Amino acid sequence: MTASTEPKTVDRSPLSDEMVGRIDRWWRAANYLSVGQIYLLDNPLLRTPLAREDVKPRLLGHWGTTPGLNFLYAHLNRAIKEREQSTIYVTGPGHGGPGLVANTYLEGTYSEIYPDISQDAEGMRRLFRQFSFPGGIPSHVAPETPGSIHEGGELGYALSHAYGAAFDNPDLLVAAVVGDGEAETGALATSWHSNKFTNPNKDGVVLPILHLNGYKIANPTVLARIPADELRSLMVGYGHRPYFFEVPDDADDAQAGADHADAHRRFAALLDDVLDEIAAIKARAAAGDDSPPSWPMIVFRTPKGWTGPDYIDGKKTTGSWRAHQVPLGNARDTEEHLRVLADWLACYRADELFDADGRLQPDIAELAPQGQLRMSDNPHANGGLLLKDLRLPDFRDFAVDVPEPGATLAEATRVLGQWLTEVIRLNPDNFRIFGPDETASNRLQAVYDATDKQWNAEFFGPEVDEHLARAGRVMEVLSEHQCQGWLEGYLLTGRHGLFNCYEAFIHIIDSMFNQHAKWLKVTDHIPWRRPIASLNYLLSSHVWRQDHNGFSHQDPGFIDHVVNKSANVVRVYLPPDANTLLSTYDHCLRSRQYVNVVVSGKQPAPNFLTMEQAVAHCTRGLGIWEWAGNEVLGADPDVVLAAAGDVPTLEALAAVDLLRTHLPDLRVRFINVVDLMRLQDSTEHPHGLSSREFDMLFTTDKPIIFAYHGYPWLIHRLTYRRTGHANLHVRGYKEEGTTTTPFDMVMLNDLDRYHLVMDVIDRVPALGSTCATLRQQMADKRIAAREYTRAHGDDIPEVKEWVWPAAKEAGVDTNAVAAAADTGGDNE
Amino acid sequence: MTASTEPKTVDRSPLSDEMVGRIDRWWRAANYLSVGQIYLLDNPLLRTPLAREDVKPRLLGHWGTTPGLNFLYAHLNRAIKEREQSTIYVTGPGHGGPGLVANTYLEGTYSEIYPDISQDAEGMRRLFRQFSFPGGIPSHVAPETPGSIHEGGELGYALSHAYGAAFDNPDLLVAAVVGDGEAETGALATSWHSNKFTNPNKDGVVLPILHLNGYKIANPTVLARIPADELRSLMVGYGHRPYFFEVPDDADDAQAGADHADAHRRFAALLDDVLDEIAAIKARAAAGDDSPPSWPMIVFRTPKGWTGPDYIDGKKTTGSWRAHQVPLGNARDTEEHLRVLADWLACYRADELFDADGRLQPDIAELAPQGQLRMSDNPHANGGLLLKDLRLPDFRDFAVDVPEPGATLAEATRVLGQWLTEVIRLNPDNFRIFGPDETASNRLQAVYDATDKQWNAEFFGPEVDEHLARAGRVMEVLSEHQCQGWLEGYLLTGRHGLFNCYEAFIHIIDSMFNQHAKWLKVTDHIPWRRPIASLNYLLSSHVWRQDHNGFSHQDPGFIDHVVNKSANVVRVYLPPDANTLLSTYDHCLRSRQYVNVVVSGKQPAPNFLTMEQAVAHCTRGLGIWEWAGNEVLGADPDVVLAAAGDVPTLEALAAVDLLRTHLPDLRVRFINVVDLMRLQDSTEHPHGLSSREFDMLFTTDKPIIFAYHGYPWLIHRLTYRRTGHANLHVRGYKEEGTTTTPFDMVMLNDLDRYHLVMDVIDRVPALGSTCATLRQQMADKRIAAREYTRAHGDDIPEVKEWVWPAAKEAGVDTNAVAAAADTGGDNE
Repeated sequence: MTASTEPKTVDRSPLSDEMVGRIDRWWRAANYLSVGQIYLLDNPLLRTPLAREDVKPRLLGHWGTTPGLNFLYAHLNRAIKEREQSTIYVTGPGHGGPGLVANTYLEGTYSEIYPDISQDAEGMRRLFRQFSFPGGIPSHVAPETPGSIHEGGELGYALSHAYGAAFDNPDLLVAAVVGDGEAETGALATSWHSNKFTNPNKDGVVLPILHLNGYKIANPTVLARIPADELRSLMVGYGHRPYFFEVPDDADDAQAGADHADAHRRFAALLDDVLDEIAAIKARAAAGDDSPPSWPMIVFRTPKGWTGPDYIDGKKTTGSWRAHQVPLGNARDTEEHLRVLADWLACYRADELFDADGRLQPDIAELAPQGQLRMSDNPHANGGLLLKDLRLPDFRDFAVDVPEPGATLAEATRVLGQWLTEVIRLNPDNFRIFGPDETASNRLQAVYDATDKQWNAEFFGPEVDEHLARAGRVMEVLSEHQCQGWLEGYLLTGRHGLFNCYEAFIHIIDSMFNQHAKWLKVTDHIPWRRPIASLNYLLSSHVWRQDHNGFSHQDPGFIDHVVNKSANVVRVYLPPDANTLLSTYDHCLRSRQYVNVVVSGKQPAPNFLTMEQAVAHCTRGLGIWEWAGNEVLGADPDVVLAAAGDVPTLEALAAVDLLRTHLPDLRVRFINVVDLMRLQDSTEHPHGLSSREFDMLFTTDKPIIFAYHGYPWLIHRLTYRRTGHANLHVRGYKEEGTTTTPFDMVMLNDLDRYHLVMDVIDRVPALGSTCATLRQQMADKRIAAREYTRAHGDDIPEVKEWVWPAAKEAGVDTNAVAAAADTGGDNE
Repeated sequence: MTASTEPKTVDRSPLSDEMVGRIDRWWRAANYLSVGQIYLLDNPLLRTPLAREDVKPRLLGHWGTTPGLNFLYAHLNRAIKEREQSTIYVTGPGHGGPGLVANTYLEGTYSEIYPDISQDAEGMRRLFRQFSFPGGIPSHVAPETPGSIHEGGELGYALSHAYGAAFDNPDLLVAAVVGDGEAETGALATSWHSNKFTNPNKDGVVLPILHLNGYKIANPTVLARIPADELRSLMVGYGHRPYFFEVPDDADDAQAGADHADAHRRFAALLDDVLDEIAAIKARAAAGDDSPPSWPMIVFRTPKGWTGPDYIDGKKTTGSWRAHQVPLGNARDTEEHLRVLADWLACYRADELFDADGRLQPDIAELAPQGQLRMSDNPHANGGLLLKDLRLPDFRDFAVDVPEPGATLAEATRVLGQWLTEVIRLNPDNFRIFGPDETASNRLQAVYDATDKQWNAEFFGPEVDEHLARAGRVMEVLSEHQCQGWLEGYLLTGRHGLFNCYEAFIHIIDSMFNQHAKWLKVTDHIPWRRPIASLNYLLSSHVWRQDHNGFSHQDPGFIDHVVNKSANVVRVYLPPDANTLLSTYDHCLRSRQYVNVVVSGKQPAPNFLTMEQAVAHCTRGLGIWEWAGNEVLGADPDVVLAAAGDVPTLEALAAVDLLRTHLPDLRVRFINVVDLMRLQDSTEHPHGLSSREFDMLFTTDKPIIFAYHGYPWLIHRLTYRRTGHANLHVRGYKEEGTTTTPFDMVMLNDLDRYHLVMDVIDRVPALGSTCATLRQQMADKRIAAREYTRAHGDDIPEVKEWVWPAAKEAGVDTNAVAAAADTGGDNE
């Protein structure tokens, strides 16, 4: 199925005329099928003269990039077959959907997967009709397209995805076409540097092909309009050895067969050179040469809309931005456009390509490799086929000891790191951790006991290069785009991983998350797409503890962004301590087809649950912490205090402590929420609580004071249909912050224990009048705390030394707790 | 104040020893003040031996990048003074906050703005204490920092901001320091190409200084670990002429004065070369040479934490990632660290720099230029000082004619484009439009009657290069990051603009929006920062009309993202037609200190309001459309239909039409919402309606069926405290879509007219039993519509030809309406 590790070199005699012809005929067939998909409703083989009613009523799609994609596909097929080189094709200009569908149809894969779209005239009619048509298929390269791991929607991620696919697939070649429009995006511009993060022995090879077709929707592209020397320098600067291929935009000859034959000969020779060079680099690396190689890449300059109409309505089309989308917008409406379309379709001479039944001529079909060597059938592009369960160490073995709630402290992510270390050990070739220079800052550094950070640029020696190696399971680059793109590519090809990131800056990949969530939603309904591992986020260095960085680093809104996506895909967890984090993450690494967002602090914080309790709590997703409240069995409490998130849980518990001290007769229920989606109704989210369950927990008529990690409105958005919603009062981050102490931060947002007590007093009807003094005490404490903080640059001892009463009774040293709280370090 | 257009060249004799000494002493002073800010609570001039209690209890800040920033600042000051060159300093590694504060303090600006921080010992004590301290200033370069237009939080935008500042400021030099960590981000990687979009005559010059200090938080940087030739190629490939400066990391000599003197001499000479070359390029361009210049840039390689302790606890610190943050975390806790800190501070010999009163020695102060030539006092860095109101043409002159509601059609953004054309004509030097290759696709192409797209790469001639010119008011590059960054830089330096973008892909800059919104929020409370123009988005090609692109291009969630930010800053508008869009945008372009999000379709759609009505409606922000409903004056209606957004408004009106036809006795109120923030309570947002107003409009007990443009949950989040909220039922985009017809899209999300009628039937108690037949009819219509669409590839005539009854009575040709609806074109 896959090739041997030793890549083949091949006979370098010039391409035979027969092969030239075969490639050209494949290309023409793919182009014909592409144009057919964009324009034709019927009459696929043009058995009768093209009529207006053969043309679709709404012409929707993109032609411009397509012939170039088809040309590359045909040539790659020749090379793959000769070299038996397992290869996948990443289509950066994914709006060239018709091209990829066409090639996969020619390879037979399409009909194997979708038997309705058979390889005959009727199948071709359906192929054409379904494209970008109601009830049909999307116009872009999409999950529905065999062989794709890369949705052709948002631009910029082709190379990141390609490298992600290549990691730990040493026998794989990833041909990654980069559009010159896409090349202007930030994500793509930095992703060229991925070559410094790959290992020639342990990873596959990415062959970037910069498709310089010169134009975007309405403009020239930057890289097509800089001097050739400058472009060469840029690629050399990116660490590549560029190979240049050019088909000039000579409108008169654009469709001339002789020119095309020359182009085929030239490109085939160039591709052989490139693949031989890749083989040579791999061989050198296998022999022990560990100097960073300059991998080849191809600059592929062809006219936009190549082989299409040169001029339409007197305006230059092929070789211009006018070829970007549907060049003949009025093909159904005007005779003139219809005639141009007929001539255009005729230029491919379909009768030479397909037999009378509409079947591809056998000698053309011969160009494609067999079985899974077809790029459309490569199992790496349907990663679920290759997915193996992770071997997971028992997370219970990594539990922190919790003799009493709050009696011990831990840095939750540091504990998680210890478990992840074993995950890495047990899964040496299908699990990686990705992060933007923050893996140690997020306190996962235990993983460096088992692995290193993969790096293939220069080394300066152990004094400065800690845990840096040519191969390793941790991928660190200061680009959230790269982390996300690499991980997506890695997951889509059937592996596992997680992305650890500062909470605020995960917004950098909001849009990439969107696309991945959409991909997962769609693939849920594509039976031949097998489930892949979930995309797991670990968001640490969160909003409440940006001690070094302040306001710019405070944004808990990624959760809000995530919950707008399909409920079948998104999961959000806010484990309150170390053991719950372990239990949560074990669950996440076992799951499939989700995006799991886990938010956890990295600072020393109390542990509340034993591992047994943690597992039970996480299994329920939320629940009453009976040890914290003081309600009477069988009776509703006077007030519900709820918390989601580690810092809010701490403040809410401290508030309960105050309430129990000052108002011992008040019956308090304490609820902690780990799985945020439990708050939604069961009809809205698969994790949602039924009304009955929710009402039993939160009551229908008692005040609920909810301390939440993020923007408070989200809790309302999730619960607005709940019976007791009118009694719900949420505290959270309301966009107030700066560089200050942790307790000052919660005070700035009214999430602090004193304010929560005030909220309870304000909300429990019976308390309002009798507790004026206590309320005033709390208000005074806030003022005093702020004054102390501004005077001393530190939080008040009362807060720093606070521990849960049971823990204090058990003899916890409150001074030690206060000292542990003093860590402002290890942030960015 | 600013220099003449003719840049000065200067005497090139070697730097005098006196000047070398002055620069070095400035640098030492800045370094001393930087270290002091990070560590010292008291004893600023070390009049007594450093004691533990002089050290801050929480050490928070970043040292590593700071000495390099200080070095550059000192040298720029020398050059600025000699050349009288108006210059601003953009600090990419903005976590080097102490450095920028130090330099602006040395320049005197800091004390002018903050008199408490005086230029004497007491002022210095306060300067130190306030840094990253509760009640003090942020640790990063921030709005509070004089001379800054660039928050030092999220990395990646230094060059985009710098170029944005330079546009239309021909006399300005923007020294933009790019951190080598930041250089790994996507946004930064593509922003180097900004040089192809600047005009040497009409724009200022950006001097990129790549600060290669080698390390990030915990890793080496990519650009510091590629061969020097490769880095040179990269910069040449980016279109620059690189100048290399290096101070080797020779730990033994790091603090040696002789080395520093040599470094000063070498860098001063290099800087003079660079500035002379810039002057020469400007002169050539002024003389008519329009070949794209290779602007100089500087690669500035210095040890990270330069002049700091070489080793701490036996580990290499200076010249390693360990110098990134606070190298001596235990300076207050251990004698050893305290001693290292004392030695470190002593190495700057503060007694040679400050007099007995703590004032900077006059000869050092001489290094700084005077007044607004100080980078900290340059008015461009406090753009509100320079802001001029736009000269706005009367938008009423661009009104579309609306004889009856729905009687005419328009493409709203195309109409807006006609007004923007005049805005451009009237404001030729302080207004620009930014867009990622979508300005024409978003139908603003009328602006090309007045201007061009600015482009300074190669031209291929008029056949393909439409509206492309060396100078123009439209900035198009396929990078949302660049569009956002340029616009931010342009606004922050006192100009106006808008960013037009496909709705879905504005998420690419979610995180940049966050930072800008935070900047605006903070500056609202900084009196010396003058208000700047609002950042205006025009989001078109929206979720409902992604006919070409389908699911990947459908995401209306930017609004959800935006509303989490401070209510004082964000505004969201959903004008339902062309005239309301004109009125809305006129308001936006006049506003200050906001982020205005305007969502508007570009497809032909009915016009509902005359300009007079539109102005009144937009002024109110929402209101009853009396012509649409049939309520009886003085009585509550039976049901409220509300709509926000153009497509939802159309569907809701069509639903009203159906209701009035089939259920003439049902009293319907129709409300349209333009200003989404009106839905919030007046206590939550300045635009919010009072409870009384809201209740009067929406009733407290009648069903409200709300057709919303985006994710439906947002409407609940905005209204959950409203009296009638339990009666509110929202339809919107629930993440269902593909490439299909417009009506199929609304049906997929149950936002279509038939479903809205069903919703009314289900919600109005009196109707439930009597309307079973009508409800079934509506359900059948949905099925029939889908079947028709799948058969014909088009929407049903009944929908396409629908017009509001009054318009039909007035003789509107429904076939023409249907034909206009057929435009799927002009999308990406």
